[in-house]
Amino acid sequence: MTDQSRIWTAALIVIGDEILSGRTQDKNIAQIATWLGVQGIRLREVRVVPDVVDAIVEAVNTLRARNDYLFTTGGIGPTHDDITVDAIAAALGVDVVIHPKARAVLEGYYASRGGLTDARLRMARVPAGADLIENRMSGAPGIKAENIYIMAGVPSITAGMLDGLTGTLEGGLPLLSTTIGCWVAESEIADLLGQTEKAHEGCQIGSYPFFREGRTGANFVIRSTNADELAACARALEEGLAAVGRPPVPGGI
Amino acid sequence: MTDQSRIWTAALIVIGDEILSGRTQDKNIAQIATWLGVQGIRLREVRVVPDVVDAIVEAVNTLRARNDYLFTTGGIGPTHDDITVDAIAAALGVDVVIHPKARAVLEGYYASRGGLTDARLRMARVPAGADLIENRMSGAPGIKAENIYIMAGVPSITAGMLDGLTGTLEGGLPLLSTTIGCWVAESEIADLLGQTEKAHEGCQIGSYPFFREGRTGANFVIRSTNADELAACARALEEGLAAVGRPPVPGGI
Repeated sequence: MTDQSRIWTAALIVIGDEILSGRTQDKNIAQIATWLGVQGIRLREVRVVPDVVDAIVEAVNTLRARNDYLFTTGGIGPTHDDITVDAIAAALGVDVVIHPKARAVLEGYYASRGGLTDARLRMARVPAGADLIENRMSGAPGIKAENIYIMAGVPSITAGMLDGLTGTLEGGLPLLSTTIGCWVAESEIADLLGQTEKAHEGCQIGSYPFFREGRTGANFVIRSTNADELAACARALEEGLAAVGRPPVPGGI
Repeated sequence: MTDQSRIWTAALIVIGDEILSGRTQDKNIAQIATWLGVQGIRLREVRVVPDVVDAIVEAVNTLRARNDYLFTTGGIGPTHDDITVDAIAAALGVDVVIHPKARAVLEGYYASRGGLTDARLRMARVPAGADLIENRMSGAPGIKAENIYIMAGVPSITAGMLDGLTGTLEGGLPLLSTTIGCWVAESEIADLLGQTEKAHEGCQIGSYPFFREGRTGANFVIRSTNADELAACARALEEGLAAVGRPPVPGGI
């Protein structure tokens, strides 16, 4: 039986000048974070790096060493700015090779689409020793090299790759959460939040203020791997809010 | 006169468990990236870190040393999980102090809102020696400590703080960009892209594929600090696409 108290962690490297220029709004951080949570794996850190080999190598080597899993998104297409495979191979100290199964997949995919050109064959390149991750959306597969999961940059393709990986990664107890909303300035109940968190072992309370409809409110997200502790902490916070005349809104606002 | 060929860089640290859990979709990366571009400053790297002092300190000390500017978002509110000021003071090796002007601002803001409690006074805490960044949206100001710009987590408040900073940071030539769209599989014109980039000094071409309306397309973003080179590169790419029977769509699809 697996030690369920062990916390499994992952990091994510988002590779792409288009995110750093502000042109593209990243969607992979939230998507991968949510998926990891369901697998019982915590996303511990994210880095966004440019399409520069040295920057990718530095991030890969730091993050793969101190996390159980490392995910990357972006830079695995057929064009000159797609350098992720080369950078990860360099980080691992291995050659880049053509993966025979990836080549076969691409040959099949492009048979009716003009054939497998040199540029398209680039998408069969992997760090030596790597396995493939199925891509249900388009031809080019993702890649698993040691503990690194190399995913597409286009969020819908990444979603398909994550779907293929579901249930295949070892994780721990999933982090449970519950949200309580309240029309209150968080500064008004800051002490209550801190005291409630301290009184419930293994629970963290995050406070996320907002301004809507001209009013001040906040959502309080309680997280724990223990369902009973989570429920007790939520109940205590609800009672505390009610006691100061601020009715809690279970589920959040 | 400033050396306009110098490239000014910035890094960004997004602080918050809510981003790493997937609960909140980050909007500050794209917002700050776009704003920096207009200031002539390039966003070189981004890290998303949890609400953990050691993680923040590590990221702050690495990134402030190798960039002209460091921005942070999140963790400057009144609650127990708001630890950004403490972490940055620790990174800088200075004490946390109450900034007299921040205290006065908060006293004014909360005069009609129940008064300045201990929790609210937390938002006047700054690393010793820091200056304030005006907050036009709500009471608590942002903070400038050495080359670090400490901003709110709520995107609308950060927007107001950025607005107040516009034109105050030294930068270089803004990076210009132009986009050309095309209904083409990027793998089909990968060589054209690489050759066109190589033929135009100081231009980078990014290729961003998409799938829409059941068709494959891509946007090609050309970037340069030189408007003439940029225009020449765009013209060459448009001619190249047309020559292979793939009409370019200026401005992108």
